[in-house]
Amino acid sequence: MMYPNWLSQRAYLNGNRMALSFEDQQWTFAELNGIALEYAGKLAAAGVTKNSRVAFLSKSHPEFVMLMYACMHAGCEMVMLNERLSKVELAYQLDDSKADLVLVDDALKDKIDSPLEMLFSELQKIEGIAFTPEAEWNPERTISIMYTSGTTGSPKGVRQTAENHFSSSVSSALNIGIAPDDVWLCTVPLFHISGFSILMRSLVYGMGVRLHPKFDAEQCAYELQSGLVTHMSVVGVTLERILSTLKELDLEVSPRFKVMLAGGGPIPPNYIHRAGSYGMSVLQTYGMTETSSQTTTLQPDDADRKVGSSGKPLFLYQVRIEGSQNPGDIGEIHIRGPQVTPGYIGKFAGREVQQDGWLHTGDMGYLDDEGFLYVVDRRSDLIVSGGENIYPAEIEKVLLEHPSVREAGVCGTQHDQWGEVPVAFVVLQDDVEKQELVEFCQTRLASYKVPKWIRKVDSLPRNASNKLLRRELKTWD
Amino acid sequence: MMYPNWLSQRAYLNGNRMALSFEDQQWTFAELNGIALEYAGKLAAAGVTKNSRVAFLSKSHPEFVMLMYACMHAGCEMVMLNERLSKVELAYQLDDSKADLVLVDDALKDKIDSPLEMLFSELQKIEGIAFTPEAEWNPERTISIMYTSGTTGSPKGVRQTAENHFSSSVSSALNIGIAPDDVWLCTVPLFHISGFSILMRSLVYGMGVRLHPKFDAEQCAYELQSGLVTHMSVVGVTLERILSTLKELDLEVSPRFKVMLAGGGPIPPNYIHRAGSYGMSVLQTYGMTETSSQTTTLQPDDADRKVGSSGKPLFLYQVRIEGSQNPGDIGEIHIRGPQVTPGYIGKFAGREVQQDGWLHTGDMGYLDDEGFLYVVDRRSDLIVSGGENIYPAEIEKVLLEHPSVREAGVCGTQHDQWGEVPVAFVVLQDDVEKQELVEFCQTRLASYKVPKWIRKVDSLPRNASNKLLRRELKTWD
Repeated sequence: MMYPNWLSQRAYLNGNRMALSFEDQQWTFAELNGIALEYAGKLAAAGVTKNSRVAFLSKSHPEFVMLMYACMHAGCEMVMLNERLSKVELAYQLDDSKADLVLVDDALKDKIDSPLEMLFSELQKIEGIAFTPEAEWNPERTISIMYTSGTTGSPKGVRQTAENHFSSSVSSALNIGIAPDDVWLCTVPLFHISGFSILMRSLVYGMGVRLHPKFDAEQCAYELQSGLVTHMSVVGVTLERILSTLKELDLEVSPRFKVMLAGGGPIPPNYIHRAGSYGMSVLQTYGMTETSSQTTTLQPDDADRKVGSSGKPLFLYQVRIEGSQNPGDIGEIHIRGPQVTPGYIGKFAGREVQQDGWLHTGDMGYLDDEGFLYVVDRRSDLIVSGGENIYPAEIEKVLLEHPSVREAGVCGTQHDQWGEVPVAFVVLQDDVEKQELVEFCQTRLASYKVPKWIRKVDSLPRNASNKLLRRELKTWD
Repeated sequence: MMYPNWLSQRAYLNGNRMALSFEDQQWTFAELNGIALEYAGKLAAAGVTKNSRVAFLSKSHPEFVMLMYACMHAGCEMVMLNERLSKVELAYQLDDSKADLVLVDDALKDKIDSPLEMLFSELQKIEGIAFTPEAEWNPERTISIMYTSGTTGSPKGVRQTAENHFSSSVSSALNIGIAPDDVWLCTVPLFHISGFSILMRSLVYGMGVRLHPKFDAEQCAYELQSGLVTHMSVVGVTLERILSTLKELDLEVSPRFKVMLAGGGPIPPNYIHRAGSYGMSVLQTYGMTETSSQTTTLQPDDADRKVGSSGKPLFLYQVRIEGSQNPGDIGEIHIRGPQVTPGYIGKFAGREVQQDGWLHTGDMGYLDDEGFLYVVDRRSDLIVSGGENIYPAEIEKVLLEHPSVREAGVCGTQHDQWGEVPVAFVVLQDDVEKQELVEFCQTRLASYKVPKWIRKVDSLPRNASNKLLRRELKTWD
C-alpha cells in the first residue's frame, strides 16, 4: 500500500481546520500546506531534490514546522539537530549523515560553522521554482533522522520512516482516543521524537498543534486553564512545575483538557494524584528514538496499583523479556512492531537494529503477572536531565580524549530543577585542574552534558571483567 | 509487519472492558476471548485447521460472534451467508467457496440443506481439544468472504483481509474520532460488511458492541435515550423510522450519543436536521463490500451545503473519476487504498478486482470543485432513454422532496419509442393524487426524466441492510 501525501490529503480533507497555532497567530491545514508548497519551490531552486538529506538546526517556531513540511513534500530525509549540541558534535552528525544542506534558524547562526549551511532568511529570499508534490508516499520512506547515543558513546543516526510515524500515531490514538477538535500543546523540542511525533499526529489525525518556543510552567498553566488545548507531553520535572504553578496561581484546568503523556521514566504517584485533582489524566509512557515515541503506557487507573510500571504495549506492539521464564524475571527488554526503526544511517548503517524481528533495547526490565512492564535499568545508565537523554559513555569518551585522563566514569545525580544532572569521576595520568577538564568538555559537548562536577579518584568501581559499574558510582556521590 | 493476534491482544490490554452486550447479558474482552478459545478447541476437534473455509448461516446473537472469533483464532476464512438467501442461492455460494464446513444457527436449520452443515448446538456438544492460538496474524490473511452481485448480477465472493478491516477501522477512527468508552449499537446484519465491520472496530479499538437481533425502531429509540451507546449504523429508511419513533414516544437522545453512520445512498437533508435537533450527528457514507465498509463520508456540517454528496474520502483513501477533466465531469468512480479487497474467490478468483491499483466500482459519479464526491448512480441502474442518460437516484430525490412521499424507488421499463423510460414506485406518508406527483416532477425535471407512471405501494424491495433493490423493482413492472 501507499499513503496519500499526508499534507495534501489533510489540506483536502480538513483545509479549514486549525493546524498550528503560535502566540497569537494560527494557520489552517490549507494555509500551512500552501506555505509548505511555496517553500518546497524555494528548496527546489536551492537544489534540493527527492532523497536529498536536509539537516535542521532550529528553535521551536512556525517557520521550522513549515520548512519541515516543505521537506516532506520534497521527499527529503530530515536530520534533526539538537540546538544545544557543541560545534564538534554538530560537525560529527553532519559528517556522518552526509547532509546536502543545513537549514539554520537565524537565531542560531553562531552555533554552527558549516559550508553547507543556509539561514532560514536566506532561503526565504530565493525565488522558488515550479514544484509539484508527489501524490503518494511510500511507507518505507525515511521522514526523519535523529541521533542517539547508545552504550558505545558514539551517536547513531536513527531512521524513522513514514510507517514508523503512522503506526506510532495510530497506536496512540487507539489507546487514548482522538477527537476531531483535539489540540496538542507542544512545549518539548521539535527536533526530539517527543515534539516531532506531535507534528506527525497532527497530520495523521488532522489535529491542531499549539506550539510554544520552550517550556514555561506559567504559560502552560494558563494554556491548561484556557480550554484551548486537550493534550500535552511532559516529563516528570515539567509536570511537577506545572502542578506547583497551577497551585501558586490558584488556577483550574479546563474540563476540555484530556490527557498528559509523560515520558522519561516513572512519575511519582503523588504527581498523578495532584494532576487527578485538576481532572487531568497522566499516562506514563516508555519509548525511545528507535521506536518513534511511545511503546507502552500506564493508564492513570493503574498508577497506584502499579507504581513504577511503564504499563502495557500499545495495540500494534509487542514486548518480551529476554530469557524470561516467569513473571518477574529480569532481562533485556525486546520490542516488536511497525513503530521500530528499520536501522541506522552513516557509519552504523550496517549494524542490525533488529534481531529476529525484535529491537533489543539494552534496557533491563520485567513483566509482572498481569503483563505490566517495569523498566529496572535504562540502557547504559541513561541520565534524564530536563527531558534530554544523556549517555554516560558519550561524556566518558570525551574525558578520555584529554591527555591527562586515564579512566573516566560518569553517572547521574539528583537535581531539583532538572531531575538529574551528570557528574564525573576521573583517574588521572598526570595532574590537571578540574576546571581545565570542565572547559575541555564545554568545547566538545552540549552544555547539558557537561559534568556538573568532576572528582579525582584513585580507581573506579569495576566488575571482574573490568566493566565499569556505574550504578556503584552513584553511591559514591 | 505482522499484527499481534487481535483477540489475544485485546484480552491482554483491556481484559476487563465490556466487549459485547446483548439483551441483559454482557461479556468483557477477556471473557469473550476465553469462550472463543474454547470454541476454537471444538472446531479443531471437528477438523477445522488454519486456512479452512468455514461458512456461517446465522441470525445476529452472541454465539455467532463467539464462533466467528473462534474461527479468527483458528486462522479460518469465514464465508458469511445471508440468511435471506434461497436454498438455490446458498448452494451456489457453498459450491463456489468450496467451504469445508457450514456452521448453522439452530433457528435457521430449515433454511439450508447441505452435507457440510453442523448446527451450533452440535458443535457445542463436541469435546474440544488443546488449542493454541497464533501469536501473530499476517495482514494479508483473509478474514471474511462476502458475496455481492455488484453490477453484473452474478454473485462474486469478495475477500476481506486483516489489513482491509484494520485500515477501514483506523480510517474511520481518524475521521470521526474514538474514545475508550465508546459503544456501537449494531442492528444491521453481522453477515453484511455493515455489521461485520462493527465487530472489527470493536477488536481494533477495544470498543464495546451492543448487539440487537434485528432492527427495531422502538428498541433503538430507547437505546439512544439510555446513554449506553455512542455510535450506530443506519440507512435512510431506518434513520427515518428511528426519528419518527423518538417523536412518537417523546424521547430525548442522551448527550453521550455521538455519531450515526448512514450508508446505502444519500440521506434527505430533513432527516439530518431532525437528527440534529436530537443532538445526533449523521455522517453519510459511501462504501461497498469490496472496500470493507466506508470509503467516503459527508460531515453533518456540510450536509446542507452539499446535498446528495457522499463527502470526501477517509485519510488513507483516494477517489478519482475516470476520464474526468474538470469538476463536475461524470465518470466511473475509482477507489484506491488499503481497504480495497485484493480479489475474489471461486470462479471469479482470476478476475482482477483492481486495475492499475484502483478499484473500478462500476458506479458513476463526479467530484465537485471542492473535491466532494457525488454518486450519480450505480451503473447497472442507468436508464438510457432516447440517447439520454437517466439516473434513477435523481428522480427519487425529487419525489422525496414532496411532503407526502416517504420512500421512492425508480427503475427503467421498456418502451417502444425511447428504448427505456423511468417509472416510479412510492410509499406515501399522506395520501396524494398520482397526477400531483407527476406535476411535481414536471416542474423539477427535464420531461424525459419524469416517470412515465407512478405506482403507490406499501413497501419497497430492500436487502437486509435496507438498501433499495432497483433491479427487483423492475420485476414489479
